[in-house]
Amino acid sequence: MLALYKIKKMNRIKPSLPKGTRDFGPNEMEKREYVINKFKEVFNLYGFKPIQTPSIENTETLVGNYGNEGDRLIFNILNSGNFLKDSKREDFNVPKRLKSKISNKALRYDLTVPLARYVSMNQDKLTLPFKRYQIQPVWRADRPQKGRFREFYQCDVDYIGTNSRICEAEIIDLVYTIFEKLKIKSFDFKLNNRKILQGITEILGISDNFNELCVIIDKIDKIGIEKFEKELKINNYNSSSITSLIEIFQFRGTNKEKISFIKKKISGSKIGIEGINEIKNILNFNKNFSLDFSLARGLSYYTSSIFEVKSKNNDLGSLCGGGRYENLTEKFGVKSMPGIGISFGIERIIELLANNDILQSNYSKNKILISFLDAKFIPQCLKIAKKIRENNISVDLISDNFKLKKQLKYANKNKIPYVLIVGEDEINSNLYTLKNMQKGKQEKKSIDEIISKMNSIVNNA
Amino acid sequence: MLALYKIKKMNRIKPSLPKGTRDFGPNEMEKREYVINKFKEVFNLYGFKPIQTPSIENTETLVGNYGNEGDRLIFNILNSGNFLKDSKREDFNVPKRLKSKISNKALRYDLTVPLARYVSMNQDKLTLPFKRYQIQPVWRADRPQKGRFREFYQCDVDYIGTNSRICEAEIIDLVYTIFEKLKIKSFDFKLNNRKILQGITEILGISDNFNELCVIIDKIDKIGIEKFEKELKINNYNSSSITSLIEIFQFRGTNKEKISFIKKKISGSKIGIEGINEIKNILNFNKNFSLDFSLARGLSYYTSSIFEVKSKNNDLGSLCGGGRYENLTEKFGVKSMPGIGISFGIERIIELLANNDILQSNYSKNKILISFLDAKFIPQCLKIAKKIRENNISVDLISDNFKLKKQLKYANKNKIPYVLIVGEDEINSNLYTLKNMQKGKQEKKSIDEIISKMNSIVNNA
Repeated sequence: MLALYKIKKMNRIKPSLPKGTRDFGPNEMEKREYVINKFKEVFNLYGFKPIQTPSIENTETLVGNYGNEGDRLIFNILNSGNFLKDSKREDFNVPKRLKSKISNKALRYDLTVPLARYVSMNQDKLTLPFKRYQIQPVWRADRPQKGRFREFYQCDVDYIGTNSRICEAEIIDLVYTIFEKLKIKSFDFKLNNRKILQGITEILGISDNFNELCVIIDKIDKIGIEKFEKELKINNYNSSSITSLIEIFQFRGTNKEKISFIKKKISGSKIGIEGINEIKNILNFNKNFSLDFSLARGLSYYTSSIFEVKSKNNDLGSLCGGGRYENLTEKFGVKSMPGIGISFGIERIIELLANNDILQSNYSKNKILISFLDAKFIPQCLKIAKKIRENNISVDLISDNFKLKKQLKYANKNKIPYVLIVGEDEINSNLYTLKNMQKGKQEKKSIDEIISKMNSIVNNA
Repeated sequence: MLALYKIKKMNRIKPSLPKGTRDFGPNEMEKREYVINKFKEVFNLYGFKPIQTPSIENTETLVGNYGNEGDRLIFNILNSGNFLKDSKREDFNVPKRLKSKISNKALRYDLTVPLARYVSMNQDKLTLPFKRYQIQPVWRADRPQKGRFREFYQCDVDYIGTNSRICEAEIIDLVYTIFEKLKIKSFDFKLNNRKILQGITEILGISDNFNELCVIIDKIDKIGIEKFEKELKINNYNSSSITSLIEIFQFRGTNKEKISFIKKKISGSKIGIEGINEIKNILNFNKNFSLDFSLARGLSYYTSSIFEVKSKNNDLGSLCGGGRYENLTEKFGVKSMPGIGISFGIERIIELLANNDILQSNYSKNKILISFLDAKFIPQCLKIAKKIRENNISVDLISDNFKLKKQLKYANKNKIPYVLIVGEDEINSNLYTLKNMQKGKQEKKSIDEIISKMNSIVNNA
């Protein structure tokens, strides 16, 4: 017995979390679920439907989509069983080869590639346009730092199989609706069109490295116009095209004025004019955006509309962003599948709201703790609990025979707004003491009266 | 250009899913979310609160908890970056050593060990009793087969830090409430106490390999009493103790009769009497279970009450099960932390309900598709959509200028019960055609009337 105990003791370990991961306790979960449910509610309101894909994808599905840097951040899963069975001793000298032999699966890195795989595999079953949303965790072997985790949720909404500008109009509206429900007020919905950027580079004769240029343009917001100019010089752009770019990106005015301005600049570019017409088309449907020619978005797969929403009043930066793409499923050899998507920085939004009033309500609305003054009242307490719960009112019941003071403390710690006290008097009179934990007041009521009271609280909430 | 095209073509891959994993499309998600939300609703009704733990745990947290067989089924994650940096060439000869050097993290295998780790790490912050629920996926490198997947959800509810029999009473009630809400009617709530089993083995003088015997007893239900007898013989139990075990396990009667029966059998065992008293204590609070001395549960960490709920009318077997344990956090060196938990086979329950009426409602309740007969009506359609959505009615809008027939087909495929048609007449009269897709009927109504109609449908649902 002692020997066994010692072995057990030796095996004890200090409990810890892997680097860059988090637990979410009840308080955090309350906030996370509130925000996630609001998103789901609005997605449903706009006719989007949920899908979920596995956490694990085949490595070949994932690699090659995120650039060399991204590919390095993919978490690989060791083959199960005898993981070395396909390897030779020599493979040890070529880590990349060894890796491909001991691991063929990896953790989801984003929600876009799984969507492309899903659409490719289910193309015959889907009714187009396919409107899906997906809220799931992704994993990245990034260096953890404040606010950056190795496991975090993404939240994507996409239309697949449509080229209509109604999508942009609806997405703009959806963003406003979500942020209104979450009481996020100060933000800019910025919109641009990659075709306009292409037009500009064509006219300036600098269209050779379009995607590289987009990456530089995308940084203007962070680095400012002076550093932007410097970076263009380093990359050997000539001074006249740099001057023109800066003039365009610094132009201020209404959307209408911006359109007239850019039309004059790029009237010689067919693709540029196409981009302008697409934006005009969106303006017919929805005017709630501000045209921003310096919005470029880093990802090379966007081909037309691109957009980004930035919070105005703090350093949280981008709240969501997305764009239109021409071929989501190319990698999987499926016929051209255009679409348009928006990705919400849901972790960032939760963080933004965590300190806000709407998520700081300290007490649940309709929750009661039943507290008994003596163990002999337990059967009666259980009956009362059952009856109250039948009215969809949440009831907690202290399982142990604590002193009343400790029970009240439990209620406070668990944000339970009412405590129903069951003692000798209460049992005899059938009138129970109901203590309001926030106001400290207490009154005697029948169970039916207590149920009515709780229901009226919820209905007036 | 052609060269580039060829390279791209070469990189194309056939889209596929890793063995044992699944996508959940909109139809499956509807069912899954319905069931999961019911569980959450009832857990909340009983005062349990959600937590979530990371998908990734340190390997040392996980291994050693699930037996050798279980440990082999853990999915290990390759260290990121240069995964070979701590390995030597010789490690290649000792796979186990190599593994420990190239992987220090693994995927969550169940929800119990993460709970133990969470409680150990947060012991100073938690208010006891701590009532948590957790619904998250787990991963096991099991051989995939029909109904068995490598990624699946678990759903656990636990009380931590309490020894009160109120917990059992509440858990029984919670199970009945959930299954009532899910319209699952035919099931048995079986309860036993490990101490009674210990008492039986003490009296029979076969208590040496108690946990092994429990594993055999646990199989009676599957293998029948004859094979059970055979297996005991193979394991060298003497025939008189086999006869006694079979007599006990075959005894039929009310809970009261069973208690009198077993009391006579094991009155000489102190621990056995303790078990009987614990069950009597539960009976004071809740009688909705049937005592079953042949219920043993495989897991050795249960020390007192054990329970299991079996579906009666099909081959789905166990719907949920659990028990009381004395020390959840032993591995992490934390002071004794008793508790009681129940684990719902949520995947099995979803499967059971998938073919049931309640999850077969073909149409959403309050959803409208707005369909335009000409593209010029789009701005008006968007206005109508906005107004209807402001009343929390879900509106879908075909983004492309399809023929009406195709739009109606889209509504049917997406289970949208009403189509609002916008044409010249409608715009002029401000009365819109509302087509009921299930009945095929259509009528003309103002937008306000349509909103009232949809609201009344929801309120009467």
